[in-house]
This record gives sequence, C-alpha cells and structure tokens, in this order.
Amino acid sequence: MSSRTVYYLGPQGSFTHAASKQFLPRVQRASGETDSAAPSHDAASTVLQPAEHVSQIFEAVNVGGAFGVIAWENNVEGYVVPNLDGLIDAHNVVGCGRVSVNIEFDAFMLPDDVAEPTEVTAHPHGLAQCRTFTQHLGLREVPAASNAAACRDIISGQIALGPRICGELYGLATKQRGVQDYQGSRTDFLLLAPRNEARSLMVGDQKPSAEYESVVAFIPLSTGAGVLAGLLDLLRDAGLNMTSFISRPIKGHDGTYSFIATIDAAPWQSHFRSVLENIIERGDWVKTLAVYARQERPNPPVTSWMLPDGGAGGRDSLSADETATRLQAQFI
Amino acid sequence: MSSRTVYYLGPQGSFTHAASKQFLPRVQRASGETDSAAPSHDAASTVLQPAEHVSQIFEAVNVGGAFGVIAWENNVEGYVVPNLDGLIDAHNVVGCGRVSVNIEFDAFMLPDDVAEPTEVTAHPHGLAQCRTFTQHLGLREVPAASNAAACRDIISGQIALGPRICGELYGLATKQRGVQDYQGSRTDFLLLAPRNEARSLMVGDQKPSAEYESVVAFIPLSTGAGVLAGLLDLLRDAGLNMTSFISRPIKGHDGTYSFIATIDAAPWQSHFRSVLENIIERGDWVKTLAVYARQERPNPPVTSWMLPDGGAGGRDSLSADETATRLQAQFI
Repeated sequence: MSSRTVYYLGPQGSFTHAASKQFLPRVQRASGETDSAAPSHDAASTVLQPAEHVSQIFEAVNVGGAFGVIAWENNVEGYVVPNLDGLIDAHNVVGCGRVSVNIEFDAFMLPDDVAEPTEVTAHPHGLAQCRTFTQHLGLREVPAASNAAACRDIISGQIALGPRICGELYGLATKQRGVQDYQGSRTDFLLLAPRNEARSLMVGDQKPSAEYESVVAFIPLSTGAGVLAGLLDLLRDAGLNMTSFISRPIKGHDGTYSFIATIDAAPWQSHFRSVLENIIERGDWVKTLAVYARQERPNPPVTSWMLPDGGAGGRDSLSADETATRLQAQFI
Repeated sequence: MSSRTVYYLGPQGSFTHAASKQFLPRVQRASGETDSAAPSHDAASTVLQPAEHVSQIFEAVNVGGAFGVIAWENNVEGYVVPNLDGLIDAHNVVGCGRVSVNIEFDAFMLPDDVAEPTEVTAHPHGLAQCRTFTQHLGLREVPAASNAAACRDIISGQIALGPRICGELYGLATKQRGVQDYQGSRTDFLLLAPRNEARSLMVGDQKPSAEYESVVAFIPLSTGAGVLAGLLDLLRDAGLNMTSFISRPIKGHDGTYSFIATIDAAPWQSHFRSVLENIIERGDWVKTLAVYARQERPNPPVTSWMLPDGGAGGRDSLSADETATRLQAQFI
C-alpha cells in the first residue's frame, strides 16, 4: 500500500483534526518502515481525511486497512461513551496511541473585515464555553452546526470561535487567542489501527524500559453480587494498578454489563498476561481495546483538604460515637 | 414555607422540564404533608422554574431550600459527568427520586403556517438525531441554541424539533410525532432535595417491602494497586449487588480518584450500613449521593451470542493451547 489514510471526525478544523495532526509523524514513520516494497516511500502521501460519522472511521479501520482518530476522554465530561462502545464492538480495531488536546478557542474574523463585530458564531457548546468574551463585547450568539463550520461559513461582522487550526485552514484573521472561560479543559484522543499493524505504530515507544498503559474490556459471564470484586481481586493480587474504571451496559441487553479498566501495564508483560490467561480460563470474556506509552502523571496521596463537602470519614481514627454520628448524616 | 420551587435546566420545554413534570405530584404531596400549618395547602403553589446553569440548581437546593432536577445518565451517552461532579461537591444536596424520559422528538410548525417547509431547526444534537426525517423532506438544517429555543423562535416555513411538551408550551401544531432516527434512547433524571427533606419526598415508596437503590461516592485515602479491590471486597462480603460503577478524577487534583457505585440497597439497611461504618472506620471517605425506589430491571445471564466481536474467552472451558492462542490475539 503506497499511501495510507487517517480518518478523523470532520469537518476540517475540528479538535479531532488537531489531534490527528499530532499523530501524523508516527503514522508516516510506521508507513515508511513497514512498506518494504518502497523503501524510499514518500511519507507525505499519508492523507488525513474527515469522516462524517464515527461509525465510518471504525469501518474504514476494520475492513479498509485505514487508520483512525477518535475522541476518548475529556477531563470535565468524562468518557466519550459512544466511541468507547464503538471500540468495544469493533472487530479488528485497536487503539495504539493517545494524545491530549487542550480545548482552547481562538476568536477569528474575515481577514479584511473592517466591520465592528456584532455577532459571535460557534457550536452551542463552543458558545457556552466562551460567554465571558461574548458578553464583554456585547455580541449576539449565532449557533452553528460545528465550530469548524462556523469558521468556514463566517460572514462580515461576525466573530467565529474555533480551534487554532481553523485560522490557517480557512484563511481567517485571529482577533484574540484563548477566549474560553474555563482554562484547563482537555480531551484525549486515541489513534486506531488494524490489530496486526498496531505494534508498528508504537515503534519508538518500545524501549526496553518503556512503560505502558492498557485499556481492557471485561465481561463476566455471570451476574450478581461480587462478580466485579472477584475480577478486581485478580488484578490486585498481580500488583496491577488501575487508573480508571467504569461499567457499561452491554448494548441492546439491559441488565448485562461490561467493565472497562485502564491498567498500568501492557498485555504482553508477564504479570498482566497471567491475569488475562486466568480470566479466559475462568470463562469470562476479555478484549484489549488500546495499549499506548504511559503518560507521566502525578499520584499524590489524598489528604483531607481535597475532600468534597458533606461526606463522612476521611480523617483521623474515630470513636464509635463519632462514626455513628457521621454515618447518620448519610442516611438522608 | 407556603410555596416551593423546583428548578430545572431551561429553557422551558427542555427534556429536563419534561422530567420535572413527572416529579411534580411527589413534590406537591410532600409539601402538603409536611406543611402542618396549612393542612389544606394548595399543592398548585409548587412552581417549576427554569435555571440557566446547573450550578444555580445546586445552589438553590443547597442554601435556598428549593428542590431541583438534573440529568443523570443516558443509556447511549453514559453519565452526565458534570452533574455527577456537581452532586459530589454539593454540601446539603441529595437525590431522592429517579425517572426516565424517552428522548423522542416531535416535529412542530406554526399553527396557521400554510408554507411548504424548507428548513428544520433544533440544537445540533437534535438535528443529528432526526436526519432521516430531514433528508426525506429535503430540509435545510438551521442550528439553534437548544431544541426548546428552536420551538420558541420558529418562523414560517420552518419545522422545529423538540420534546412533546414544546407543542403546548409554545402553541405549535404537531406535524409528526417521534421523528428521531434511533428509537430507544432515554435519559434518567434525579430529583434533588436538601438532606433533611429527602425522606419526606420518598413517602409512598416506603413500604416495609420497598426495595431501594443508592448512589454512593467513595474516596480511598490511599492510592495504588488494590485500593479499589479492597473496597469492593467489603461490598461483596456484605452480599451487596452493584449495577453501575465508575471512577472519576477528583476535581483539581490530577491523579486522585473517587469511585461512584450504584448499589441495590438503602444506607439505613443493616447489611449496607455496616459496610459504610467499616469504610468510615478505616478512614476512607464516603458520601450518599442519592437513594430512590429500585426500578424493575432484567438481570439476565450473559450468553456467548451477546458478546462483542474480537475478544477472547467467554465460552466453554478451553485447553491451555486454545487459551494461549486466544490470548495471543489480545497482545496487538
């Protein structure tokens, strides 16, 4: 294959497009290295292609030999659950890289627009995230189908809000950078590949000392009290650290659940491998959704001042009376 | 207090507004029964009031003695995580009721509009959920800030998409019912109350045989491998069944986590109470976020045909070779 396609959720200029650009060097390197028929392979032939629906991205990777990029988790909104469900269901698709994109909005105008701006346009979520800026300038809000569409379709007298890459893409003038109300929102994206190609995309991460993180879906074949505890006992006994864990109803089957865990290990490392063997031998179901280089992150102890208001516990040891009083407040 | 206010996320005609109407009889009953100074209290004085931001709802319940309604979980999108985080952080606020609203869109027009419709208007999510209808009629999409705003601001020649209650609220003619592409999306909402009033809102659910469900947040005061497993062992050993479980980073403290579990019991029932005592005595932190009457739901065993493609395990017992082969496919 002489050129490869990386699909992302469009239109051009979306945050997913910005994430795809971060993955591009890795895809180019892997394509150059694995295409032995063309050692001087032109890396620039890798194409970033917008898709209209995420389902088209999964399909292109699953049967079309393409790569894909999907939004995975936002630090404020949590998991992008439909994408998580899509990855659980996709047959020959696995995540093999993870990047973060800061959710920052720049304010754009047409390059030669001399009109005083009176309107601001973006997706309703974008508008909601930049209200201080909008109110300061006294602009009228004009909802758009997406931030990128707002930037593409901007007219004189309007300010469009969108990711930084929209300025260059649509030839706009930047009026102001970083106009979002809340600093610190970020979304993580996964690079998707066919299973047999995923390892080649991790080249460069594979130092002997490299540390990995895996996202794994488990489905216990029985339900009831303690099913999950039994599963987690296996992970604990192997000394595996989890950094994220959620349950999800199995699509179309009310009352059945899968569990999705992010674990500080790669499935080919022996301590994690033996847990997976154990789970399969028990008759439970398991699927590796993603493996990628572990990101640096803090792991601080929780101290009392970090705790939310209104709960019980989390302090020095309590007398039986104190415990009873604090507990009583939890009964509503 | 002679009249009570129930805040929901507006504008009028939102799905949260529809959920609030479902909670109204319960709030009226509780207000009538608890207001001993006015036994013939006019239940109709309970007011449903739209709020502009969810934070205003938490505030009104926390310090203003109001009730509130928030979106909690959608069967496709998962938890409404900002609302979950808000409830974890709110001091004197607890959920005491849960209802489901089917996410169904009706197509409305102005009542005397004889124009052939050429445009369709809704929030971009609403537009995305009704595309078959839109394409069938060949309509041009006009994004709006919300579905309710689209119905409120509709003009001649437009079709607005929104919840059923928008028809009556805005005096519109219903052109077609239930025009959403996907049948079966539903969102659950929680009724919020000050902690000392929550029990009175559960009146009628409190038969001796009543079954409850609780949503509880846990924060272990240490981090590392096995912390979560240890917590779940306590729940298992008490025979408590969990139907939902997720981890969430503690806001503003990267690398620290809270765990949110939905458990088939009420915190005042002895087997659950003793677990909570145990957790508090260990020095971990716990907070009851909600208690409500348990909904009927199926609890089927998982069988092989329900499993997604591409995983390993979940069948009859395997030989060591078969296990190894299936495992190998998980290494990517």
